[in-house]
Amino acid sequence: MTDFFKGIPEIKYEGPDSTNEFAFRHYNPDEVVMGKPMKEHLRFAIAWWHSFAWEGGDPFGGRTFDRPWYPQDSMELAKLKADVAFEMFSLLGAPYFCWHDADVRPEGATFAESRDNLYEWADYVLPKMEETGIGCLWGTANMFTNRRFMSGASTNPDPDVFAYAAATVKACIDTTKRLGGQNYVLWGGREGYETLLNTDMGREREQYGRFLTMVVEYAKKVGFDGTILIEPKPQEPSKHQYDYDVGTIYGFLKDYGLENEVKLNIEQGHAILAGHSFEHELHLARSLGVLGSIDMNRNDYQSGWDTDQFPNNVPEVALAYYEILKMGGFTTGGTNFDAKLRRQSLDAEDLILGHVGGMDTCAAGLKAAAKMLEDGLLEQALTDRYAGWDSDAAKSMLAGDLESAAARVEAEGLEPEPKSGRQERLENIVNRYV
Amino acid sequence: MTDFFKGIPEIKYEGPDSTNEFAFRHYNPDEVVMGKPMKEHLRFAIAWWHSFAWEGGDPFGGRTFDRPWYPQDSMELAKLKADVAFEMFSLLGAPYFCWHDADVRPEGATFAESRDNLYEWADYVLPKMEETGIGCLWGTANMFTNRRFMSGASTNPDPDVFAYAAATVKACIDTTKRLGGQNYVLWGGREGYETLLNTDMGREREQYGRFLTMVVEYAKKVGFDGTILIEPKPQEPSKHQYDYDVGTIYGFLKDYGLENEVKLNIEQGHAILAGHSFEHELHLARSLGVLGSIDMNRNDYQSGWDTDQFPNNVPEVALAYYEILKMGGFTTGGTNFDAKLRRQSLDAEDLILGHVGGMDTCAAGLKAAAKMLEDGLLEQALTDRYAGWDSDAAKSMLAGDLESAAARVEAEGLEPEPKSGRQERLENIVNRYV
Amino acid sequence: MTDFFKGIPEIKYEGPDSTNEFAFRHYNPDEVVMGKPMKEHLRFAIAWWHSFAWEGGDPFGGRTFDRPWYPQDSMELAKLKADVAFEMFSLLGAPYFCWHDADVRPEGATFAESRDNLYEWADYVLPKMEETGIGCLWGTANMFTNRRFMSGASTNPDPDVFAYAAATVKACIDTTKRLGGQNYVLWGGREGYETLLNTDMGREREQYGRFLTMVVEYAKKVGFDGTILIEPKPQEPSKHQYDYDVGTIYGFLKDYGLENEVKLNIEQGHAILAGHSFEHELHLARSLGVLGSIDMNRNDYQSGWDTDQFPNNVPEVALAYYEILKMGGFTTGGTNFDAKLRRQSLDAEDLILGHVGGMDTCAAGLKAAAKMLEDGLLEQALTDRYAGWDSDAAKSMLAGDLESAAARVEAEGLEPEPKSGRQERLENIVNRYV
Amino acid sequence: MTDFFKGIPEIKYEGPDSTNEFAFRHYNPDEVVMGKPMKEHLRFAIAWWHSFAWEGGDPFGGRTFDRPWYPQDSMELAKLKADVAFEMFSLLGAPYFCWHDADVRPEGATFAESRDNLYEWADYVLPKMEETGIGCLWGTANMFTNRRFMSGASTNPDPDVFAYAAATVKACIDTTKRLGGQNYVLWGGREGYETLLNTDMGREREQYGRFLTMVVEYAKKVGFDGTILIEPKPQEPSKHQYDYDVGTIYGFLKDYGLENEVKLNIEQGHAILAGHSFEHELHLARSLGVLGSIDMNRNDYQSGWDTDQFPNNVPEVALAYYEILKMGGFTTGGTNFDAKLRRQSLDAEDLILGHVGGMDTCAAGLKAAAKMLEDGLLEQALTDRYAGWDSDAAKSMLAGDLESAAARVEAEGLEPEPKSGRQERLENIVNRYV
Ligand SMILES: [Co+2]
Ligand SMILES: [Co+2]
Ligand SMILES: [Co+2]
Ligand SMILES: [Co+2]
Ligand SMILES: [Co+2]
Ligand SMILES: [Co+2]
Ligand SMILES: [Co+2]
Ligand SMILES: [Co+2]
Repeated sequence: MTDFFKGIPEIKYEGPDSTNEFAFRHYNPDEVVMGKPMKEHLRFAIAWWHSFAWEGGDPFGGRTFDRPWYPQDSMELAKLKADVAFEMFSLLGAPYFCWHDADVRPEGATFAESRDNLYEWADYVLPKMEETGIGCLWGTANMFTNRRFMSGASTNPDPDVFAYAAATVKACIDTTKRLGGQNYVLWGGREGYETLLNTDMGREREQYGRFLTMVVEYAKKVGFDGTILIEPKPQEPSKHQYDYDVGTIYGFLKDYGLENEVKLNIEQGHAILAGHSFEHELHLARSLGVLGSIDMNRNDYQSGWDTDQFPNNVPEVALAYYEILKMGGFTTGGTNFDAKLRRQSLDAEDLILGHVGGMDTCAAGLKAAAKMLEDGLLEQALTDRYAGWDSDAAKSMLAGDLESAAARVEAEGLEPEPKSGRQERLENIVNRYV
Repeated sequence: MTDFFKGIPEIKYEGPDSTNEFAFRHYNPDEVVMGKPMKEHLRFAIAWWHSFAWEGGDPFGGRTFDRPWYPQDSMELAKLKADVAFEMFSLLGAPYFCWHDADVRPEGATFAESRDNLYEWADYVLPKMEETGIGCLWGTANMFTNRRFMSGASTNPDPDVFAYAAATVKACIDTTKRLGGQNYVLWGGREGYETLLNTDMGREREQYGRFLTMVVEYAKKVGFDGTILIEPKPQEPSKHQYDYDVGTIYGFLKDYGLENEVKLNIEQGHAILAGHSFEHELHLARSLGVLGSIDMNRNDYQSGWDTDQFPNNVPEVALAYYEILKMGGFTTGGTNFDAKLRRQSLDAEDLILGHVGGMDTCAAGLKAAAKMLEDGLLEQALTDRYAGWDSDAAKSMLAGDLESAAARVEAEGLEPEPKSGRQERLENIVNRYV
Repeated sequence: MTDFFKGIPEIKYEGPDSTNEFAFRHYNPDEVVMGKPMKEHLRFAIAWWHSFAWEGGDPFGGRTFDRPWYPQDSMELAKLKADVAFEMFSLLGAPYFCWHDADVRPEGATFAESRDNLYEWADYVLPKMEETGIGCLWGTANMFTNRRFMSGASTNPDPDVFAYAAATVKACIDTTKRLGGQNYVLWGGREGYETLLNTDMGREREQYGRFLTMVVEYAKKVGFDGTILIEPKPQEPSKHQYDYDVGTIYGFLKDYGLENEVKLNIEQGHAILAGHSFEHELHLARSLGVLGSIDMNRNDYQSGWDTDQFPNNVPEVALAYYEILKMGGFTTGGTNFDAKLRRQSLDAEDLILGHVGGMDTCAAGLKAAAKMLEDGLLEQALTDRYAGWDSDAAKSMLAGDLESAAARVEAEGLEPEPKSGRQERLENIVNRYV
Repeated sequence: MTDFFKGIPEIKYEGPDSTNEFAFRHYNPDEVVMGKPMKEHLRFAIAWWHSFAWEGGDPFGGRTFDRPWYPQDSMELAKLKADVAFEMFSLLGAPYFCWHDADVRPEGATFAESRDNLYEWADYVLPKMEETGIGCLWGTANMFTNRRFMSGASTNPDPDVFAYAAATVKACIDTTKRLGGQNYVLWGGREGYETLLNTDMGREREQYGRFLTMVVEYAKKVGFDGTILIEPKPQEPSKHQYDYDVGTIYGFLKDYGLENEVKLNIEQGHAILAGHSFEHELHLARSLGVLGSIDMNRNDYQSGWDTDQFPNNVPEVALAYYEILKMGGFTTGGTNFDAKLRRQSLDAEDLILGHVGGMDTCAAGLKAAAKMLEDGLLEQALTDRYAGWDSDAAKSMLAGDLESAAARVEAEGLEPEPKSGRQERLENIVNRYV
């Protein structure tokens, strides 16, 4: 035991009336919601990067945090960091964690050294995972921080960087598999451009399509049976990122025949940056069959960059889990907190409280979403609204041709009268549950 | 001749030093640029709706314009409007026009009456077209103004509205064909939603996919040999529109196997609303093989809605035509001004000057783009930047698998050193031409 | 009694578990919160314009609603509209209403006729007000819809329009006074510009400053003892509006010595358009002593224009009332719903349900805000955070000069150690109440 | 001479047709424009921070540049950096530079050590300044990078940080004075908040008002005869910054009686983040008498954060210098490039080319603006538009009261007819010059 969280108790469920800051008011892991314990619905994961690797810097300021595992440049301190991480997972009762290679191990002088550091970290955490039962939700490769990736990883104009990216992802998939990771994620922060003047999007897209195909084939070959996920984000750090949003990625996957091989890890903050609500991206991905997992961290609506804050608005979160429940719940996916403390939140306690608040918000949102579904009023309204399309005539019109459809207008003297969309009524109904 | 433009002369080219407000300083229709007269590159079209049908209203105010063809509720005034329109096309030397059914004819009491009004308008303008040589760039159906379409056209929850949309599009395609129109455009202002609470996106997308398929098949059946175009826009009037941007539409087309049947009509203002630059959308569409035509009207960068202003920034416009030229120029497409006067620009003169400025800006942009291409510095920089990918080793890596690519890293001790992207240098080069 | 709301019962409080759509779950008018009945805290007002005058149009579509008082061009129908309005106020138990001249009466052929129509309306509603006890929260002049105001009201380049604006506001203040209105509001939708190329902001600002001064003096002269309020909005319909936000208006008021004469009516939607949260604008106005009243209608966070939706997010609304309560509550101000139905919400029922949802959301927000204050944890955290400034040394430093302050650094060897801002902890605390 | 810029020649003017990348095409320092050499109009300054101190990091990536003066932690390397800086100023013919304390010297272990490092740097550069004739446009204190300032400088909840800020600014003003700096700038990147939950804006504003007052008094006391400038920015790094925009700062200055003591340094990128055009902020500041100096670096219109790019769009820049010329030109102010290379622009050459392009863009913009003014068409249009206000009747109305103004409407039967705002015509005229 390190003494980093000294004095902070294990977080337990105490119910909605608790005023204990170090207790859950909504997250009751074993409480059954729609036939399944909450913990199996939510499948919470803690992100190694924001919680342990990020030092509090922003574009105008440096490190604000003081952590005993700084500077993060030795395996010894990487292990101390891992010790603290597992202590935090345990305190919170979080069943999973997520990681990039760069979060967990120091960069080596060569690729081989970096990779060996990663493997050494895996050696170190595997016994901890077995001991605690805490699993890996997903692993991923950081191909955006190091300057070698500044102009892209797989989409780099330099084929050597493509090779480097391949080697990096291979090592990360191997490690994810070894840790029993349930998914492998690709987020392409540098797969995009700064200026079109030096960019051939067609060429870079082709590089990216080939890369993703190779990744999928490699995962199959080595028997990785988790899900390959892409995480959309429209921009930042790049001026434009190719994985802009759900709709864009879907077209890309279709182009490379990967729409059944790859799913999406959708983050609220990135949805907002792309001009969408979170529930829009989830609903769209669900309807396209590519909804895999979520990063449950919000953006500030007034900031034009990704703020990666812990969720705290239950009505918003409820609409997200409503989409998850309508999909039938997660399979390999889960709820990852790709969320960081504000850089002024310096204390170990803040790290715990940020997650307690986030987990509680999700639990309250999940319960509200379950009530929305179980009551059935919203589903019924939806069914009623589209009921006209269930008639045989409508179905056959949809299967037919333009002229036949058109012909009905005059034949039947159609002058369709609009019907109320009932938006306010439906919003009021939602407010019964949240 | 009406007297609407009384006293306004035909607009002629007078060269860059002219201070005549009623002359072109850059647009010289027959001047050859990269082997083709400017008029054949630019293929200008005037939009019937903004120039003749829109009355100057905005969400907080009513009509500001006074036009002799108001109120727009009779065929007689529709014909006066057509007279003025052709006078304007002639004054400007604009080779094409574009129209919605609702722009050109009064709404009838029934569908049949509306359609017959449209046909009567076509009867009326056909001789004018023959006489003047002015052609139809594209036609389209207004399926967003009338309350019957408030919840969508093809994506409406009411199948009767789908039928009405079919009949409407059929009449518009028939008329476009009759007028020798070179394209048929679909813009789905109401194909989207106001709230997800009453929306099933999967179902609506399927309706839309079927509708578009029917449209394509009908066009083929009746021998319409123009191009079918979709115009992307992310939102407004709808909270979310399904044709969000190029990337999204591409995925939709792929899903319905229409990516070789349908192209895109891309508007600067809509690109901006979707968080993209105009040149981004053009470059992406070009690289996906779906760039068809453009709406050359800008958005105000500080306004969150579509302002549809005439283009006036030559450097921006040059980057757009650079993409058009790199595609090899328009085939059936052209440069449509989906641009409206500011509502305070009340005079007939303003209508002419808005177009003069827009046409001149495009001409200057085209000439700059041609110089950019002909000088070859930008193209050379691009070729050089990706040159590494032309080696056999790189090509075979791209065709190979992840492990082989990865293996090179250690075998060859790769530590890729980043190279400057030269953005500022390239921007300086662009500034030589604009 | 008209039959517009036939079958819709009076809305009564039934408590949080009610599933009656036509009942309040949170708004219990006489329930005492922090020593005052809820109705006296909230002081709800219904807006005549959105509820009765707006016909469902948007920039791409016309009227969607069907109301028995359309077309709105006669005093007879204006009276029917008033009948329905008072029926709605009564059904909802709303104690106040708000109006523009243009909402309540038909435009006349001359100014005098328009004004007389307004007075006739006042004659008509005064007995209804007495009978029902329903009051006027505020009146205002519509100086944005008619084309005469297209280039501004008081800021118009034409002095005759300034005069017309003066006459209009005079008539509206007179009427507000006659109706016992508690405030008079100015919203300058056209007090701004479309392009700087035809605008002299210094000159227009001076016109505006003089106009506002005249308004204040006139109100005093006639003994109007309500509050004069300005409503900030950054843009729409104008590209830029002079009353951009709270900070900007404050500078303007200071410049004309009106900071003690004029207060602000702050709307959530407008705060968002200006890049602020609602609570920011309220907190700032409170700290500057200019917070008067609120328009409690939200914007869609993904839309770049003013959507004027009913509030439905309790956590957001709670933060707004927290500011109101910290100010000591409203005096003449109140909670106006400057909110409109979605244009697809066609039914009379929707009009009621929109307001029921909005009122309930506000009531729940108010109760949460009261708990936040009463528990005192947030206030205590704030006091503690700034406690260092309460020492005599700190106070004297603040009253002193730069050199003395600077001298302490070396004299005392200051190396200030940052303290956690505790944001996540505070957010968790807020979530106990909402 | 270092060899950092080895092989790069001095940049000379070669005229618009030059294809020499290392030459000016527009900036001809001694060419007279409106009676003054261009160099005296433009008063270019290079920013020490972006050009020499920033290492290419962004929120998702570390250092990309390699410079011989890294790591920036010794006075020795600080002097090498200064050597290179002056070489660059000389190569470019830039007459001024700007600096923060943190750019030019290593942070010391104590305040005194940091300050002494700053003074040592001043000792080192003073002879270079004398020798080259290169001056200091302005100095400023970096009170945002170090963690001690994470919760504000003068607005910090800890009075010791206020003292530290006072000592820091004192040292920077002293140094600016010693270097003959013409202005002293305050940019409050941390003078704002992350969350209202831990913030008392009234209190922080008061601290800030007192601080600014102390600064002004100190500058006077020590005989610093430059201008004190505040630089507005709405957000980033803070969620909200108190110096939001010109309008907001004006109110703040009025409140503390500083509107004649303090002017503004306005940056295009910050204007855009606040929802304004650059020319809006300049025009407003000019009309309020508080326009001091400019940071001539643009934002990317599609990015929601400050990209600080070199200007490259001449039409935009022309509108900015139009405002400067209408003010009568800069007095102590100038054109500072608060512009950074893209992080992929690694080479010494890029640093030169970025500035060459920026300077040329400004020169072209200035010349265009001068032509706009000299031709007089725009000014004439403005005069004509407001001509009605020059009559005695209009002036006396403006000086009068509401009733008198209103009385004219009926007395004279006013029904003002709107006049065209001529926006498109004016935009066309602007395009003659740019
Ligand atoms: Co994120
Ligand atoms: Co994420
Ligand atoms: Co548009
Ligand atoms: Co368009
Ligand atoms: Co509003
Ligand atoms: Co309002
Ligand atoms: Co900046
Ligand atoms: Co700046």
